[in-house]
Amino acid sequence: MASTDLTFPSREAHRAWLASQAVLPKGFRAGSTSFEFMPAEVSKPAAMNLTLLALDRPTPDFAAVFTRNAFPGAPVVIGRRRLDEPTLGAVVVNTKTSNVRAPDGVAMAERLCAGVGAALGMAPTQVLPSSTGVIGWRLPIEAMLAAVPAAASSMGKASLLDAAQSIMTTDLYPKVRRAAVGQGSIVGIAKGAGMIEPNLATMLVYLLTDLAMPRATLRRLLPAAVDPSFNCISIDTDTSTSDTVVLLSSGAVPCPDEEAFAQALSTVCHDLAEDVVRNGEGVHHVVRVAVTRAPAERLARALGKAVINSPLVKTAMCGNDPNVGRILMAIGKYAGMHAPQLNLQDTRVSLGGRTIFENGSFRLDPAVEAELVAHLEHAALYASAAPANGVFRPRIDFPPHERCVELAIDLAVGTAGATVLGADLTHEYISENADYRT
Amino acid sequence: MASTDLTFPSREAHRAWLASQAVLPKGFRAGSTSFEFMPAEVSKPAAMNLTLLALDRPTPDFAAVFTRNAFPGAPVVIGRRRLDEPTLGAVVVNTKTSNVRAPDGVAMAERLCAGVGAALGMAPTQVLPSSTGVIGWRLPIEAMLAAVPAAASSMGKASLLDAAQSIMTTDLYPKVRRAAVGQGSIVGIAKGAGMIEPNLATMLVYLLTDLAMPRATLRRLLPAAVDPSFNCISIDTDTSTSDTVVLLSSGAVPCPDEEAFAQALSTVCHDLAEDVVRNGEGVHHVVRVAVTRAPAERLARALGKAVINSPLVKTAMCGNDPNVGRILMAIGKYAGMHAPQLNLQDTRVSLGGRTIFENGSFRLDPAVEAELVAHLEHAALYASAAPANGVFRPRIDFPPHERCVELAIDLAVGTAGATVLGADLTHEYISENADYRT
Repeated sequence: MASTDLTFPSREAHRAWLASQAVLPKGFRAGSTSFEFMPAEVSKPAAMNLTLLALDRPTPDFAAVFTRNAFPGAPVVIGRRRLDEPTLGAVVVNTKTSNVRAPDGVAMAERLCAGVGAALGMAPTQVLPSSTGVIGWRLPIEAMLAAVPAAASSMGKASLLDAAQSIMTTDLYPKVRRAAVGQGSIVGIAKGAGMIEPNLATMLVYLLTDLAMPRATLRRLLPAAVDPSFNCISIDTDTSTSDTVVLLSSGAVPCPDEEAFAQALSTVCHDLAEDVVRNGEGVHHVVRVAVTRAPAERLARALGKAVINSPLVKTAMCGNDPNVGRILMAIGKYAGMHAPQLNLQDTRVSLGGRTIFENGSFRLDPAVEAELVAHLEHAALYASAAPANGVFRPRIDFPPHERCVELAIDLAVGTAGATVLGADLTHEYISENADYRT
Repeated sequence: MASTDLTFPSREAHRAWLASQAVLPKGFRAGSTSFEFMPAEVSKPAAMNLTLLALDRPTPDFAAVFTRNAFPGAPVVIGRRRLDEPTLGAVVVNTKTSNVRAPDGVAMAERLCAGVGAALGMAPTQVLPSSTGVIGWRLPIEAMLAAVPAAASSMGKASLLDAAQSIMTTDLYPKVRRAAVGQGSIVGIAKGAGMIEPNLATMLVYLLTDLAMPRATLRRLLPAAVDPSFNCISIDTDTSTSDTVVLLSSGAVPCPDEEAFAQALSTVCHDLAEDVVRNGEGVHHVVRVAVTRAPAERLARALGKAVINSPLVKTAMCGNDPNVGRILMAIGKYAGMHAPQLNLQDTRVSLGGRTIFENGSFRLDPAVEAELVAHLEHAALYASAAPANGVFRPRIDFPPHERCVELAIDLAVGTAGATVLGADLTHEYISENADYRT
């Protein structure tokens, strides 16, 4: 899925590579700040990052897709309205509270847009808000408005790396991907590590390009790029109320080749989607499932998702345990419920290139077992160490490699297919989400 | 959901209560044995329990429902055939290997039935096999046949408790429930602690009754009792390949009152279903979700399942963390995907009787937070202790109480409803399924 096959021997090597990706396209600025505040909902202080992405001149050429969760956050409600505006000039992103169904949430977010617009010389409707954090908490609007000038004065035209860092919450490292087309580029940043099974979009993704491309084209190309990338990943099956992907073009560089642009956009989306999974909460293994010769793409994708979302498949992967019966269980669970007419007679399943199931039966023995264990161990990002206090924390904050556990499911009944990306389920995920308040 | 509200101050108190439930109905015998064998698939020995349940005389009056997983185990394939037999006389249950899609699985299971039939003086087709354990592993048929005489000679007419213990795998304690009707009774035992989101049936459940009830009635009443009980629970969303519920009547006690029988059957099924969840792998909290005023029962059940199956809701429960925004996320995830036309304007959500969301907004403050924490702590079965080696093991092997986390979702749009039972997601679940080979 990823366009690259990188390895990073150290945190420093990864950061250097990120810096090389994070070159801001022409016509953009980025900045950020952070501060403490007291939430209205609990009785202890919290910290918030505020990030600004701005165009030198508001642009008519932008596109966005949002979550399909039926309780969207206030920023998503406003973001959908912004799609009808003639131009967009800036994005403001905050962490810690997602402003979902908090009292007066939409009004508070509009006040923030007005404050940002005033600082940047833009109308409130030229500012798109994004929020991520605790669902149900209010925006600390006065503290945020007070922090806007600091964020605005920090803005620079060189790098997106600070912004990519500033939008992070439980992410372990920034996610930045770049693709060049002629003299221009598309550079994207993503935030997202939990509550990730996007539908029409994922957590927070900002794609900036200086390549000139009209609004109508952007709005056609963005969903096409998002569908096989962000919509084909799942970390924990949970679809956020805040999922947002925004694409902004400054138009500073002419781009006559729409096909090359679409290809670059697709590459950045696929790479960022894989980054989001690889950096998912507690992830030790990225699991890629390729479903082939299916009767329909939709079924192939759903069946692949059923496999990567099975807690028992996920925990087996975590343990480097080729308990491959659980994979068949997950296929059968999906097919039994949702595709009872599907003929599974000729289904063939392989793990790490080794056939484990064909002609209706498993093919297992101690030699195969050893080979499968080796494949799982090779794909591991790191191993847990038992912590003295029982709270598991990730042992790395960079991706040492881009290898995946490779599962292939050949249904042998059609010509459609899909590839989905998931992850294992680990003690670090439990610690992240149960052992202390997010 | 459970018909009782029991508390058990100690393991001994729980075992004494189990013994009081496990009185065998008239006309039945039960026995078991265990032994070691060498699996063909891995290179270390394993242990197996073999359990026999038998009628004094084969009966025409029996019913069974099985998994809807599209890769059913060989015993399920055979069990479906047995439904057409004139009589059934015995059930043989083994642990450790589930005999799912292993080479020659059906033939091996039939050989086992023949061995059991020979020992009990019955035809092979009068024996129903059940298997639970690793998917893909073969039955160690020679070792099993050698063990049948020991199991047969251990059979007694007094108690089902040894059998309830013998069918356990990762279960922490036996599950036995009894309901009396006049001079007769229905006594059920269940095994199941993981891979539990049954569909049409759950893991392994055996319901024995001496109450006379014709086959046709049993086959009508069993699915009706299973649907709102076993089909409304989920521990980990995974539907086993072996789910089986069998109901056998010896007919020793006349039962003119079908209504009372149906009620008793429903009670035993509901109580066992709750037992299965309470004893689920790593479960600290049982979570009950009551969805009311829904447009349809099917939607109510699916929406409730979406809430109890959300990993982020489950981990919040585990941590006694009233991160209630995740509950709204889960409702919105389901509605956005599967019921986009559902009007959520008047949805009201409460936790432990406290309203947390109504009129489109959350109702949260530090006092509410403290009340919700107290409710979650009151419903906890036990708390984790950090283990020195990083492998979390349950700290109890009995259920200290029958309290649940009580979630209510009032959709205010219709008259249908459903109640579902789920559980939290804990370090003990991860350790059970990742830290050592099951």
